[in-house]
Amino acid sequence: MIDLLVDKIQALQNPTVVGLDPRLSMIPEHIRQQAFETYGQTLKGASEAFWLFNKEIIDAVYDLVPAVKPQVAMYEMYGADGVDVFIRTIQYAKEKGLVVIGDIKRSDIASTAQAYADGHIGEVTVGETAYAPYQEDFITLNPYLGVESIEPYFPHLTKYDKGLFILVKTSNPGSGEIQDLPAGEAGKPLYEVVGGLVEKWGEPFRGRYGYSDIGAVVGATHPEQGSRLREILPHTFFLVPGYGAQGATAQDLAGCFDQNGLGAIVNSSRGIMAAWQKDSYAKMFTPEEFAQASRAAVLDMKEDLHKAME
Amino acid sequence: MIDLLVDKIQALQNPTVVGLDPRLSMIPEHIRQQAFETYGQTLKGASEAFWLFNKEIIDAVYDLVPAVKPQVAMYEMYGADGVDVFIRTIQYAKEKGLVVIGDIKRSDIASTAQAYADGHIGEVTVGETAYAPYQEDFITLNPYLGVESIEPYFPHLTKYDKGLFILVKTSNPGSGEIQDLPAGEAGKPLYEVVGGLVEKWGEPFRGRYGYSDIGAVVGATHPEQGSRLREILPHTFFLVPGYGAQGATAQDLAGCFDQNGLGAIVNSSRGIMAAWQKDSYAKMFTPEEFAQASRAAVLDMKEDLHKAME
Repeated sequence: MIDLLVDKIQALQNPTVVGLDPRLSMIPEHIRQQAFETYGQTLKGASEAFWLFNKEIIDAVYDLVPAVKPQVAMYEMYGADGVDVFIRTIQYAKEKGLVVIGDIKRSDIASTAQAYADGHIGEVTVGETAYAPYQEDFITLNPYLGVESIEPYFPHLTKYDKGLFILVKTSNPGSGEIQDLPAGEAGKPLYEVVGGLVEKWGEPFRGRYGYSDIGAVVGATHPEQGSRLREILPHTFFLVPGYGAQGATAQDLAGCFDQNGLGAIVNSSRGIMAAWQKDSYAKMFTPEEFAQASRAAVLDMKEDLHKAME
Repeated sequence: MIDLLVDKIQALQNPTVVGLDPRLSMIPEHIRQQAFETYGQTLKGASEAFWLFNKEIIDAVYDLVPAVKPQVAMYEMYGADGVDVFIRTIQYAKEKGLVVIGDIKRSDIASTAQAYADGHIGEVTVGETAYAPYQEDFITLNPYLGVESIEPYFPHLTKYDKGLFILVKTSNPGSGEIQDLPAGEAGKPLYEVVGGLVEKWGEPFRGRYGYSDIGAVVGATHPEQGSRLREILPHTFFLVPGYGAQGATAQDLAGCFDQNGLGAIVNSSRGIMAAWQKDSYAKMFTPEEFAQASRAAVLDMKEDLHKAME
């Protein structure tokens, strides 16, 4: 699956993934009204608003970006109706030809990890019938439980053509509290130790570009650490959150790319989804044109990334 | 919430939590048939089988144990229908007076953690209406992103009377790959460093028994590490997985309790839910009496724990 993602990044000349993390506060009034008129001010009504909103955003950007990244928490918080829209969003994005990265950050012991693996990137069997309930192309995972908690996903990478991004160095300002601790015999920071494990776990899953189906999450908000990780993890593709609303600039994350301008895909969520609420786009687009504002924000981000990578 | 949990443990003289981690393979044929007849061999049919199964187990054990712990992965893997049954299971267990520990092991940056916090142990607002979609009493969380990723849950502990269990030392055999790394300036194992943070985070949330609403997950499968953590984390209550099917004996986890026999609650999932499939109980109970087999397994586990704690 990593090969397909890199192919798309190259074809579009755009290493951007659009984060689909909707909140009611960023959904224009007319969309909320439409959803509430059908389902009331209910969990289903809120979920429906997300669906209508996501669909228009996907329609407006699918020809510009290789991938979208729905954040499951934003849907899960509305219960089963929210999860239903998470799934419909994934499936709609795939119909539009997008690679879908499910930002689920799951972690559990092997027997439980198997359930997540089968549900999210594999198949579950009921009686004699097999279902693929979620169908993400990639999912994010938390490594705190060790390789045992990641191994159950490995067979699915080949069997179902999928990928993983393992949390190595996250984008939150305080990620260093645990991830920067000197760890192991050599006293390297924990995120380097975990990064080294991810590079090793990924070895059997390398593709045409030299990158593995097992990638790493590396926050754009820690530029020196990102460059250092790029250097020591030459076969690990990076999913880079933190650009835009979280404060990182294109210059900050330039070190996450390799000499060929590959090796990373940069996420922006609020900066794209909620572009219509920003002064600069609000001047050009009405709330009804929110998806066109998102499209403009994608084009601006692409230009910004290209400048920084020159 | 920790006070209520300890009150119940004392009243019942039973520090056991029943893990509700159903799999289709442990559900008796007559229950599966009943569910499939109504909904077919579908994701909804599988979820319905879980619901019928859980309900009978809860009815058979609610007067013996203080708490149940549904593992969300087992439900989530069946999509929105599974999540619906996860929620119905929580709500049914609460109606029966049980404390509910949602084993969700979530982890994310603050703005996303807020969504999990509101959905699982708080409220979400749609228009002018507030909903509490999940309503667990406790949830489990993964600490890899640092206190920033845990803080969004803190206000809910007081406002909604809730609790947390943070992964410190997990029960899987290979948990040491990352958790046992010497970490920090003093080179203590990472799980001790994380345990120390949990003890500190929990300080403002201590209750009548001296234990905090912020507890720790400490696997029974690592006896010496459990005893050591009990010693250095005197105000942190332990959720102890690993007994039974995962291999730990009552003797292994005795060190997780304090001198008063408090300080820990021990989980058993497969050992109780799937008791009817074990030779020892299959002799006494038919598949139709699976819930009675679970009840017998709970009583046997209680006796086993009491012996080890004497």
